[in-house]
Amino acid sequence: MARWQISPPMALALDLARTAAAGGEVPVGAVVVRDGVIVGEGHNLTRTTCDPTAHAEIVAIRRAAEALGDERLTGCDLYVTLEPCAMCAGAIAHARIGRLYYGASDPKGGGVEHGAQVFRHAQCLHVPEVYSGMGGGEAAELLRGFFAERR
Amino acid sequence: MARWQISPPMALALDLARTAAAGGEVPVGAVVVRDGVIVGEGHNLTRTTCDPTAHAEIVAIRRAAEALGDERLTGCDLYVTLEPCAMCAGAIAHARIGRLYYGASDPKGGGVEHGAQVFRHAQCLHVPEVYSGMGGGEAAELLRGFFAERR
Repeated sequence: MARWQISPPMALALDLARTAAAGGEVPVGAVVVRDGVIVGEGHNLTRTTCDPTAHAEIVAIRRAAEALGDERLTGCDLYVTLEPCAMCAGAIAHARIGRLYYGASDPKGGGVEHGAQVFRHAQCLHVPEVYSGMGGGEAAELLRGFFAERR
Repeated sequence: MARWQISPPMALALDLARTAAAGGEVPVGAVVVRDGVIVGEGHNLTRTTCDPTAHAEIVAIRRAAEALGDERLTGCDLYVTLEPCAMCAGAIAHARIGRLYYGASDPKGGGVEHGAQVFRHAQCLHVPEVYSGMGGGEAAELLRGFFAERR
């Protein structure tokens, strides 16, 4: 796997993951960028908001779409610290995200390179470019630390 | 496929789909039930709310979880007029929905019996019982009528 320099949006996503952990949420963060400008960001909020859909990607996409006044985030890129699950991969397709950058792979719950592999079926009506690995070591370490504290 | 009598929650989901169409949204409706009581309902709202994740199932699940004050809808059943897409199937798994009843199959966009088949992978951490076909004819007719008007 190529080693990536951590770009500013992924650095922010990692900071958002740290914020999530501090609030008792699984440490995953996400940032939506258009033309170099951050238009949406978020971290896991499922416990805080009693919302099983409030994964970092969904939160960031909803905020970006609201900010831009458009349900389609055409020309936007999404940076997220962990491989999206099937739900979030589906949301990324519906939102028409142009490029997806994710950090750590998630063999246990991922839906991009693992499991449902949502983008690899004809039923997925939009497929982003996908790049993995940027910040993956840091992202995985945050998750390991979070769950180790809770065992 | 077995022919179903349309139960009251699915009849409500069909009514919600009609409401969606009247508002210019793709006609899909969803209802969450626990112990015979409706705890959440919704229809597609992606255009109205500029939210690409606002499919009927997601709207109904978010409302049910908020109403019950719990991100897990254990013991709840979801009725939806159309086969869930990959995003919504993932949300159904995260919400721990017990039984999923859906009306029409969706070969072009479905993620349960088609495409990603989200529930059929080890990465899906909760699998509901799935029943299809109830109200499927009515649900499919609503969708055909909606898209025919727009062509």
